[in-house]
Amino acid sequence: MSPAAEAKTSHGAASAGLWQIAVGDELLEGRTVDSNSRRVQRALGGGLRARGIQVVPDRPAEIVAALDRTAPGGLVVVTGGLGSTPDDRTREAVAQWASVPLPENAGLRAELEERAHRRGLRAKAVFAALASQAQVPAGLTPLRNPVGSAPGLVGELRGRLLVVLPGVPAELEGLLPGVIAWLRERVALPVDSPVELWRTAQRGELAVVASCAPVRERHPELAWSWWLSRWGVDVRIAAPGATSGGPAPGHLAAAAAELAPLLDPVSYGRDAAVELPAAVHARLQRRGATVGVAESCTGGLLAATLTDTPGASRSFRGAIVSYADDVKVSQLAVAGELLRRHGAVSGPVAEAMATGVQERLGVDYALAVTGIAGPDGGTDAKPVGTTWIGLATPSAVWTRRYRFPADRERNRDLAVAAALDTLRRALDDADPSALWLAGDSWAASDPSGGGR
Amino acid sequence: MSPAAEAKTSHGAASAGLWQIAVGDELLEGRTVDSNSRRVQRALGGGLRARGIQVVPDRPAEIVAALDRTAPGGLVVVTGGLGSTPDDRTREAVAQWASVPLPENAGLRAELEERAHRRGLRAKAVFAALASQAQVPAGLTPLRNPVGSAPGLVGELRGRLLVVLPGVPAELEGLLPGVIAWLRERVALPVDSPVELWRTAQRGELAVVASCAPVRERHPELAWSWWLSRWGVDVRIAAPGATSGGPAPGHLAAAAAELAPLLDPVSYGRDAAVELPAAVHARLQRRGATVGVAESCTGGLLAATLTDTPGASRSFRGAIVSYADDVKVSQLAVAGELLRRHGAVSGPVAEAMATGVQERLGVDYALAVTGIAGPDGGTDAKPVGTTWIGLATPSAVWTRRYRFPADRERNRDLAVAAALDTLRRALDDADPSALWLAGDSWAASDPSGGGR
Repeated sequence: MSPAAEAKTSHGAASAGLWQIAVGDELLEGRTVDSNSRRVQRALGGGLRARGIQVVPDRPAEIVAALDRTAPGGLVVVTGGLGSTPDDRTREAVAQWASVPLPENAGLRAELEERAHRRGLRAKAVFAALASQAQVPAGLTPLRNPVGSAPGLVGELRGRLLVVLPGVPAELEGLLPGVIAWLRERVALPVDSPVELWRTAQRGELAVVASCAPVRERHPELAWSWWLSRWGVDVRIAAPGATSGGPAPGHLAAAAAELAPLLDPVSYGRDAAVELPAAVHARLQRRGATVGVAESCTGGLLAATLTDTPGASRSFRGAIVSYADDVKVSQLAVAGELLRRHGAVSGPVAEAMATGVQERLGVDYALAVTGIAGPDGGTDAKPVGTTWIGLATPSAVWTRRYRFPADRERNRDLAVAAALDTLRRALDDADPSALWLAGDSWAASDPSGGGR
Repeated sequence: MSPAAEAKTSHGAASAGLWQIAVGDELLEGRTVDSNSRRVQRALGGGLRARGIQVVPDRPAEIVAALDRTAPGGLVVVTGGLGSTPDDRTREAVAQWASVPLPENAGLRAELEERAHRRGLRAKAVFAALASQAQVPAGLTPLRNPVGSAPGLVGELRGRLLVVLPGVPAELEGLLPGVIAWLRERVALPVDSPVELWRTAQRGELAVVASCAPVRERHPELAWSWWLSRWGVDVRIAAPGATSGGPAPGHLAAAAAELAPLLDPVSYGRDAAVELPAAVHARLQRRGATVGVAESCTGGLLAATLTDTPGASRSFRGAIVSYADDVKVSQLAVAGELLRRHGAVSGPVAEAMATGVQERLGVDYALAVTGIAGPDGGTDAKPVGTTWIGLATPSAVWTRRYRFPADRERNRDLAVAAALDTLRRALDDADPSALWLAGDSWAASDPSGGGR
């Protein structure tokens, strides 16, 4: 047996699971959320289920206590507290927990100084700060960081595989490929149990759960879960432990076949890695079609969301954000008469914005959003959340009224998701009736419009 | 002593601290981050320091174990697992941990059914799901939810003040004011220790820490912290325990006075609640001035960020997102010759975009961003991250080149922050030299331009 294979079997990291610790006062004082634990989970591919996350302050005693609560044989990933500021205490806490010395790594220090020098940093205080970043608990090895200065630390201490990463997201992301490569040499990362996934939009959670109910009653042996994505609700069914006495894979396939007619019509995809904007771009690019948008209440968020996706420039051409009404007139050729008669938040204005931006930017498909995101601006007739979405296709224009139920931020997010999914439905099916589905949540009118 | 006052003193929630538990498989499988713990911390005003956050799966045994790790006398806030889907198990876990029954609350059930009925939900499965939502562990009281159906649960169990809230952010936010009112009747929420805060932009963390070093050496008795915000680096100094033997308040004021000349020039504000976009809007509105933006690589994100702020319509008029080059020509009047000679990512094009949108939208101030966000599109001469920012004021146009060091998402965020802070500097000081400060991070050129 080769040493690598031996290491793989002697470590039960798969069975003892993943233990995550996020370190930082800012995570406990309302300043920041721990987004790093998810980054680590995603890099591990979902195969290694996290047992839990402990979020602890920048105090060595609390970091030590969190490390004590992890199980021997597990993979322990600690994020945060590796920076160069004096409140970064993770290095000394790890050394204390493992009762190992914390010597300075001379090679690492030289590299950090060289890097600071290249960036034009000369102050004495900078170099003093770097000294602490060059300390490495005995038994751990620094992983060079392609982004930023903080190195990662990996190794085995007290029977755990230990990975310590900086809390700055870009620095952490830069280190993750190296961490995964290091891990693969030591543990067999487990494969996830078989899963079927639907990603839906324009439905509330209760409505989606109700759609699934008849199939779920026939297949209680499967693990069912529902969760909110940024775009709507995802449905996942899994056959846990299929290899060790759980339901046979056939059950999962049977349930998926029964679920498909219920969920496919409201689903933009089956792939956890493909978000709704990417699903829209893929459909546009298959048709060789382009898109542009006109926005009022979302203020650029729909365009920003479409351009989150790398390669968006192959289908997205541009946007006109007409926050002020006279910009709707001057930049989108919306008739002033329409604004006066119907108001900016109205079907006729949504239609004029969609056709206006379609013509101005020379795009095949155009989306328009005009609404009242809140907290101000609502009236009895048009309460906060009232939003019109317009869609211009090469042959028709459609508008639909929504009534989103939440605060400014969430109403804007819901409007973006509804607009993107409306375009997705139009791209999936030339039949205009496909734009409207019974049971759509938040829809306050059926789509109206048609060919021009 | 009134019962309320007695309750306030008998509960040592201030001393035993805040214990947070976030429940949900989705938080451990790379699907969602726990953003609710921060919402709770912010609602508590920062006075009650969180001792830690435990993130656990939707399994009663693990929820019980997390509850066991909280301290008697503490305030325990559990978020998640209160929905209507079968994987929501928090109610039963709380009942199990406290060894209390879990009866159905008939009044609550009637309310939930009435609410579903009003929303047009009629399916039997919906009503079955609501039955579980109406279960309340004995000893807890439901808090009515103005948003969504899941009620909150509050009460005292096993010597802790226990608050159980739904995981859907909008539902949680809707419940928080009621939770705070309930808490104020039971505990004296402690006041935070005195703090001085600077919020800076366009500086890396190392550079900001180095700026603070001389003052920090003179005031090691204060608690210093630095953290990354969405816009840059925040610096906070606190006098912990000033009322109980810590440093006297005079020390904090002295350090703040020494720090001001070092940090004020790179700071957009001193208030944790005022983000950079709101700081920009406040300055524009004081001058009665308007702003518009032209965007390429940021694809609408700068406009979306400016319109995150309620009331943005008083200063923000609109945006033109010219993702395709010919849209720069048609919608912003950028000369085709400039694009051919210098390329879209260049100072002359950034200048033409800024003046183009200033003229098209009739705004006083205009920002333009054109760059290569990545992952593709970089060249040796213009690597990924190369970004030009243009600023047109009523009397001058300035451009500056940046080289952002990160991935697509972060490069876009950094470009938005740099653009907003450039405008903030221009609004703070008519002197154009204030647009450039020695030591700005990521700046790859000094601003060039001037009066027109």
